[in-house]
Amino acid sequence: MRLFVNRIKSVFISYSKEDKALIASIKMIAGSKPYNLKPYKIATQHTSVAKSVKRGFKESNERLEYLGDAVLSVVVAEYLFKRYPFKDEGFLTEIRSRIVSRDSLNNVARTIGVPQIVRYDKKRKTPNSHKSLFGNTLEALIGAIYLDKGFKHSRSFILNKLLKPHFDIEELINTTKNYKSKLIEWTQKQSKSPSFQHLETIDKGHYKEFIMEVRIDDEPIAKGHGLSKKKAEQDAAREACLKLELEEQ
Amino acid sequence: MRLFVNRIKSVFISYSKEDKALIASIKMIAGSKPYNLKPYKIATQHTSVAKSVKRGFKESNERLEYLGDAVLSVVVAEYLFKRYPFKDEGFLTEIRSRIVSRDSLNNVARTIGVPQIVRYDKKRKTPNSHKSLFGNTLEALIGAIYLDKGFKHSRSFILNKLLKPHFDIEELINTTKNYKSKLIEWTQKQSKSPSFQHLETIDKGHYKEFIMEVRIDDEPIAKGHGLSKKKAEQDAAREACLKLELEEQ
Repeated sequence: MRLFVNRIKSVFISYSKEDKALIASIKMIAGSKPYNLKPYKIATQHTSVAKSVKRGFKESNERLEYLGDAVLSVVVAEYLFKRYPFKDEGFLTEIRSRIVSRDSLNNVARTIGVPQIVRYDKKRKTPNSHKSLFGNTLEALIGAIYLDKGFKHSRSFILNKLLKPHFDIEELINTTKNYKSKLIEWTQKQSKSPSFQHLETIDKGHYKEFIMEVRIDDEPIAKGHGLSKKKAEQDAAREACLKLELEEQ
Repeated sequence: MRLFVNRIKSVFISYSKEDKALIASIKMIAGSKPYNLKPYKIATQHTSVAKSVKRGFKESNERLEYLGDAVLSVVVAEYLFKRYPFKDEGFLTEIRSRIVSRDSLNNVARTIGVPQIVRYDKKRKTPNSHKSLFGNTLEALIGAIYLDKGFKHSRSFILNKLLKPHFDIEELINTTKNYKSKLIEWTQKQSKSPSFQHLETIDKGHYKEFIMEVRIDDEPIAKGHGLSKKKAEQDAAREACLKLELEEQ
């Protein structure tokens, strides 16, 4: 009912030039015009340009990003759940995390035109400060679509405008990024030396799980687990790359 | 359409005695009868009693738990988002994690009668092996409701049967568990000694964030952050309690 009222209302509002441009962009990205423009305006507003609305509270897109992240998670979860009926939850979790990773969300966001609608303080830009800007804005946009049009609509946006056209899931499954080489390369540049330590083998009955730790100059950085020492090393290296923020380099 | 067909079908199926009991329990817990019983049967089947269905793949409730966890997350996210319009995403994330914590899901699951419907191998029970059994089954049940009746219905189940009757959100916000005392108590029992180390102060412009590390017998266990050293210590202690699985003791 609320959605219906917003839909009717939206016909009678007269918009500013700026708003009209945003509406056109949203239509291009999401496939249909907003009913209620407000959440989209917030979604495209980075914290660097957000204004205080109440006792120091800034209305930036970070709250919507939190909401959109959850919506994205459940839609991808269901999609993988149904597509792979004989794969266990470890597999589903891993593939989902590759789909919603910062790297891939940033890439998709760039492709579908998010950079053209996000407003942020370009003067404050440093190499790191806006690293996830586009991916985060895409999540906020999902949050806005959810608030504006409900679950079904946001589910169909995620499946038909993001997941199916921009992800090759089979390739994602078969590609194992070589995090270990990436980490070793980085440590060499920093004149540091990495090492891998076998911490534990857990007997799981019908299989064994290995826990490996990666250290840099003997300082423990991250742990990883896997069904072989090699896989556990890769997992630890992946975790270390994330912690050290090497993902986008 | 699919839901409608299942609804019609469900009227004509003749169920076994066991199935009828499960249907009655689901009705009691969820407020309405299943359309399609199959996902509920899987949801109430712990991996310890799961049978192989295909090349070693066991149909246990773990996949549904993964799905239900995502559905729960988005519903709680939206609820908090709307209830606290002037709170930032850090607050929303923290309160959500308290709501969906292992402890609280286990408690709610016990209260609403999940122990009566879950099937698991009682012989294999060790103090730790079934620690999260009821909470996990509750998540799997949410997954089953989602598959059987869709998003709206599972959202209303979560809000009206779990969140509103079983959580006092205001209390949850105001109660800060004293994780530090819990950790100190535990280490004393183990004749070990804990210490807290200030690692870093991050200048965030208008405020500072402190990073503290907790060590047990000089071995780093966990890190925490907060707006004061005391808060960062609590956060590190909370993280350590989770890692050491002290949460339910």
